Amino acid sequence: MAYEFISTRKVEFSETDMAGLVHFSNYFRYMETAERDFFESLNLPLITTSPDPLQGWPRVRAECKFMAPLRFGDTIKIHLVVKAVKLRSIDYQFRIYRMQADGPAIQAGKGHLTTIFTQLAADGSLVSQELSASIRAAITEAPASVLAQKSLS
Amino acid sequence: MAYEFISTRKVEFSETDMAGLVHFSNYFRYMETAERDFFESLNLPLITTSPDPLQGWPRVRAECKFMAPLRFGDTIKIHLVVKAVKLRSIDYQFRIYRMQADGPAIQAGKGHLTTIFTQLAADGSLVSQELSASIRAAITEAPASVLAQKSLS
Amino acid sequence: MAYEFISTRKVEFSETDMAGLVHFSNYFRYMETAERDFFESLNLPLITTSPDPLQGWPRVRAECKFMAPLRFGDTIKIHLVVKAVKLRSIDYQFRIYRMQADGPAIQAGKGHLTTIFTQLAADGSLVSQELSASIRAAITEAPASVLAQKSLS
Amino acid sequence: MAYEFISTRKVEFSETDMAGLVHFSNYFRYMETAERDFFESLNLPLITTSPDPLQGWPRVRAECKFMAPLRFGDTIKIHLVVKAVKLRSIDYQFRIYRMQADGPAIQAGKGHLTTIFTQLAADGSLVSQELSASIRAAITEAPASVLAQKSLS
Repeated sequence: MAYEFISTRKVEFSETDMAGLVHFSNYFRYMETAERDFFESLNLPLITTSPDPLQGWPRVRAECKFMAPLRFGDTIKIHLVVKAVKLRSIDYQFRIYRMQADGPAIQAGKGHLTTIFTQLAADGSLVSQELSASIRAAITEAPASVLAQKSLS
Repeated sequence: MAYEFISTRKVEFSETDMAGLVHFSNYFRYMETAERDFFESLNLPLITTSPDPLQGWPRVRAECKFMAPLRFGDTIKIHLVVKAVKLRSIDYQFRIYRMQADGPAIQAGKGHLTTIFTQLAADGSLVSQELSASIRAAITEAPASVLAQKSLS
Repeated sequence: MAYEFISTRKVEFSETDMAGLVHFSNYFRYMETAERDFFESLNLPLITTSPDPLQGWPRVRAECKFMAPLRFGDTIKIHLVVKAVKLRSIDYQFRIYRMQADGPAIQAGKGHLTTIFTQLAADGSLVSQELSASIRAAITEAPASVLAQKSLS
Repeated sequence: MAYEFISTRKVEFSETDMAGLVHFSNYFRYMETAERDFFESLNLPLITTSPDPLQGWPRVRAECKFMAPLRFGDTIKIHLVVKAVKLRSIDYQFRIYRMQADGPAIQAGKGHLTTIFTQLAADGSLVSQELSASIRAAITEAPASVLAQKSLS
């Protein structure tokens, strides 16, 4: 039963904008990377495409507070924590850290995603699903202490 | 004194993902397009790069609720409303609508951006600024009725 | 029978990078926008998703020469010209221009896309198709003079 | 003296499009990732921002042949090879491979980038520079056999 994961990646040149900083929309893509890595660590498929129909996790809400800038070349860590597991959805909290060679990690953002387990029906409509037994067996809610933790340990 | 703007655009193929829907991170880019168009309608520069230093509007918070999917080829309207004008920042509310040829617009998302008027100092640090007189003369807070309005009129 | 189209759009903030210029990968997205607008002008679907399987135009080759920078706020025109119509594919040439308020358009790029009319089979494989009669009735090759034209007329 | 580098990454969900494949523009971003990793492996800065002005490597030409599709979850390797080192520019060749768990790597693309060593002058103009001594000491042209190599060894 897992409730957290830490992904590591580097900021790409194409993720910056003319202010010299990572464009804010990419913080949401960083969260998504951590979600993918979390599922992979559990041997759970994030998306299934066959047999039809496609099953996945559309977002119903996304939020981010931007606390410090990120720049090209920065190494970042994304700390995913499972905030709530509901009948048909999962809430995640994310903290994004910029790593320093000679100092502590600096928190650059705090985000949330609410995702709904969903089938894309043949007519294109989205139909929410109850979480499967395999998902419930693998993913659980984090203790409050882990949600509140503001550093990488 | 302006407090709202409606931008129109079409969903691009490159904005979709393998679920056949617009990737959620692009809703935030749509909000940004409306902000750009709003400033342009007021003849205000959104970014100034000369003389140095660069002045702009980094985001400190971004949020979106996803209410209906958007797909390739959809025509969308983004309704920006000024929620609050503070000493150094502006809060925007956005409603994103999918237009239908034979029916009313369907609300696909509701979002918020909080932006801080900021100078990028020579050493790379970000320094918030008080809103200039020209910004204060052009942008004002919307009446509650406009913020609450759930359709395009 | 059409062989050219001109699309107009503005450079978005999120399309710039830390060099202050449009990231080169976006020139390819600009070409794709013009392809979409070209098909729309002909009332031809660019992508069909129903009935299954999905039909579209994967690229087999893309190229661009970058001749002048594009920046946030620039208005650009993308001139699509049909270079070749083959049994299963279309070759396009694109010229991308930056518009000036007080002067002639400046060519910022010259590109090519080769696209193959393709079905995505149920097993995920891609199977090229002969161009349909409706495509052949709508799209034709441009005269050499139009391909060689280096300005917007 | 180095003339090649292999980068490894995974395809992100946000890099796919509604055809279920990686959007073609992202192949160019993959090449850029390999260029960044190549410079990092040599302890050379790819971009310098201080002291002013910004120095970097704008592209003057980019090309890609798309040979096999890439999908969400694929692990890819990008093989950068230095094709030519000129007075002010470097030409790279890239081969992009999709890794298979139980079989050989499959070549998904072959690309080229021509990059010019450039200063962004204070007035926004781009001024090409001769390659520095440290660049010339670190980067050299690959033998023909390496350029022709069609597999990962």
